[in-house]
Amino acid sequence: MDIRLDELVRSGDFRTMRQGLLSLDLPTLVDELERLDPDDRAVAFRMLPKALSVRVFELLAPELQGELVSQLRSRDVATLVEELDPDDRVTLLEELPASVARSLLHGLDPDERRMTLAVLGYPADSVGRRMTPEVLALPSGSTVGRALRLVQAGQEEAETIYMLPVVGDGRVVVGVMSLRRLLASDPEAIIDDLMSEPITVQATQDQEQAARTVRAHGALAVPVVDAERRLLGVLTVDDAMRILLDEEHEDAARAGGTDPLRRPYLATSVWRLVRSRITWLLFLILAAALTVNVLDYFEDTLAQVVALALFVPLLIGTGGNVGAQAATTVIRALALEEVRPRDVWRVLRRECMVGLLLGVTLATLAFGPAAWMTDWHIAVVLSASLVLICTMAASAGGLIPLLARRVGVDPAVLSAPFITTFVDGTGLIVYFLIARAVLGL
Amino acid sequence: MDIRLDELVRSGDFRTMRQGLLSLDLPTLVDELERLDPDDRAVAFRMLPKALSVRVFELLAPELQGELVSQLRSRDVATLVEELDPDDRVTLLEELPASVARSLLHGLDPDERRMTLAVLGYPADSVGRRMTPEVLALPSGSTVGRALRLVQAGQEEAETIYMLPVVGDGRVVVGVMSLRRLLASDPEAIIDDLMSEPITVQATQDQEQAARTVRAHGALAVPVVDAERRLLGVLTVDDAMRILLDEEHEDAARAGGTDPLRRPYLATSVWRLVRSRITWLLFLILAAALTVNVLDYFEDTLAQVVALALFVPLLIGTGGNVGAQAATTVIRALALEEVRPRDVWRVLRRECMVGLLLGVTLATLAFGPAAWMTDWHIAVVLSASLVLICTMAASAGGLIPLLARRVGVDPAVLSAPFITTFVDGTGLIVYFLIARAVLGL
Repeated sequence: MDIRLDELVRSGDFRTMRQGLLSLDLPTLVDELERLDPDDRAVAFRMLPKALSVRVFELLAPELQGELVSQLRSRDVATLVEELDPDDRVTLLEELPASVARSLLHGLDPDERRMTLAVLGYPADSVGRRMTPEVLALPSGSTVGRALRLVQAGQEEAETIYMLPVVGDGRVVVGVMSLRRLLASDPEAIIDDLMSEPITVQATQDQEQAARTVRAHGALAVPVVDAERRLLGVLTVDDAMRILLDEEHEDAARAGGTDPLRRPYLATSVWRLVRSRITWLLFLILAAALTVNVLDYFEDTLAQVVALALFVPLLIGTGGNVGAQAATTVIRALALEEVRPRDVWRVLRRECMVGLLLGVTLATLAFGPAAWMTDWHIAVVLSASLVLICTMAASAGGLIPLLARRVGVDPAVLSAPFITTFVDGTGLIVYFLIARAVLGL
Repeated sequence: MDIRLDELVRSGDFRTMRQGLLSLDLPTLVDELERLDPDDRAVAFRMLPKALSVRVFELLAPELQGELVSQLRSRDVATLVEELDPDDRVTLLEELPASVARSLLHGLDPDERRMTLAVLGYPADSVGRRMTPEVLALPSGSTVGRALRLVQAGQEEAETIYMLPVVGDGRVVVGVMSLRRLLASDPEAIIDDLMSEPITVQATQDQEQAARTVRAHGALAVPVVDAERRLLGVLTVDDAMRILLDEEHEDAARAGGTDPLRRPYLATSVWRLVRSRITWLLFLILAAALTVNVLDYFEDTLAQVVALALFVPLLIGTGGNVGAQAATTVIRALALEEVRPRDVWRVLRRECMVGLLLGVTLATLAFGPAAWMTDWHIAVVLSASLVLICTMAASAGGLIPLLARRVGVDPAVLSAPFITTFVDGTGLIVYFLIARAVLGL
């Protein structure tokens, strides 16, 4: 059904609206709510039956949860927050002003508060923040039959029962059992004889790295442990998936020159869109200031042969693009650990070759038309510059992400502005130096 | 341990090499193999014990599986291919030359061949290609006890037993049971009273859309059905995750102006890298040819006021970036269905505002330095051009992806070259027209 929620909210026809809302399936309902303005969203949200509102709240983007919390009465809020998983609750608390977050924490029952605080204690990008402490563990030495009874008794509380950590003294993880294996085994067997080597992640480890571990092993969940391998919680495939997709999105946004929005486009204000883009544009304008200076320096050469100006956008555009291509490829390879900082020479050799081949191809194609438009001297200048600029740009595009990683900065953030600055400035210098040499100025 | 596999392969010290290989855990081993040249990879792969080699093969990128197949003896290959899941096998078969694929298919046992052919029958980007037909279904009307016995008996064959479709006459899906629910329930209860509404996807549906369904519902797997809701297979969260990550990667690569590589960087030949980048560069050179023509047209104006040339790279660069930012944001919003083609006016209004605000900010900052370097007339021309170009670029960047979607083309592919062409060409025209008006040329 094609309902226009925003029109319904504004028309004030709440009966039709409530019917409209209830006719949607859960994901569509969440989508539709996320497309509304914040005020309209609060109105629509209040019309939902309580059980449904809890499920919708869970699925909303954390930023929108934060906004809603400030618009609802505090009793409603307490219920909503209580129903969230500890890890999702932490994400929400991070979105709220400190005073609101504190009062929410105090409203929780002691057990839930303890778990939430445990998760809140870990560093911002660590696994600890994304794990859920609600994990069901099997004591080492149990029989399969006893383990199955433990699963049946404890499953209400646990986030997953499909991956079951086996723990020894002091909750040290000694293995993992899959529920699948458990069901297939003789009830009298001892789980220690059946369990597999545990693949674990440390709570203080980086989220993305941990998520890649989950993915590389095709696991439904992995136990999260402390430095002594004691069980703290579990990281599930859902959470891993969200971490990896957020990361990919971040890289895609950065490649396009914006900060990731982290909220639906239509629910983002124009000011927030401007803010997500202005930093990168300011960087670029500084890079561009360099090109203005270079052109200023060569103004005499330009005045003598105005035709040289014709190819400036073409050269800069091509150089920037060749650099961006190399950087995009290498940034991704670094993120996937296909390339490591020690591979710097291998990468440089390849990108240098790729840039040279691209440059020669483009120079060959450009020579004819350029000679026809101007004269063959300028066409020679253009072609030689294309070859050199492409080679330099690809090399810089391959190198800069590796150097960024070495000095411990996110390659996706640092690379684009640096490459643009480098390629634009040096590209023009190369062009004019070749021009002076060939044209004898 | 930091071993250099490539050096070990070349040194011919196979004993140390084998020990080195066996000392690695599975994902690291796969990573290391993927970093080798194809020939070295085949050498290293042959040294692995058989059971391990099967697991490694499963985890290699499909393109590298394809290469290996052509380098190993056909008896080894038969074992490796037989062990793959039907969906992974199809991905591999797509990589191979038709004749090799045919002979491989003939080598399979009849059951496996039937399943592989079933998967191969679906269109390229459909769910059918990614589903696994090895699914365990519960007959409608069973008791919980009987269902559990079916699960225990059939689990060897099934891809997952955690999500169990319930089927009625003609294998029509009438519900789904989670194993979790099954374990928690009274053995005498009838599953039809416990099962939930099935969320299904159709085999002919688009992969990405189906993967988003899996993610939106937080499901471990969803049943794949035909148009009559008959059970065909299952799409698991792993497969959904891979589809979504591939898709994100594709968008990131496109935003950086390259075709996605689909294989590890160091395992990609220089020629393949060149090919993945040249198409986009050729597009760009066509766009740049337009700028050459515009500049040629205004050559008289340029010759009169050479200082105008100073700001050409700055204007084009800024315009291109503002356009790319808008496009990146809108392309993502479209992919996530936060924005639909019918929202064209809402998007246009917002992007026009964002572009205007960005333009005014940049123009304010640029005016002083430009006036100091040249004179205030030219600074006025520059500032006015920045405001207009940013507004146009953001609007075009927001609009073009929506138009691409309307005409049924992937917005991520079409948008960048079109936006660059549009912004570079029209941007220069705007600049020189304003210059002529203000400077009275």
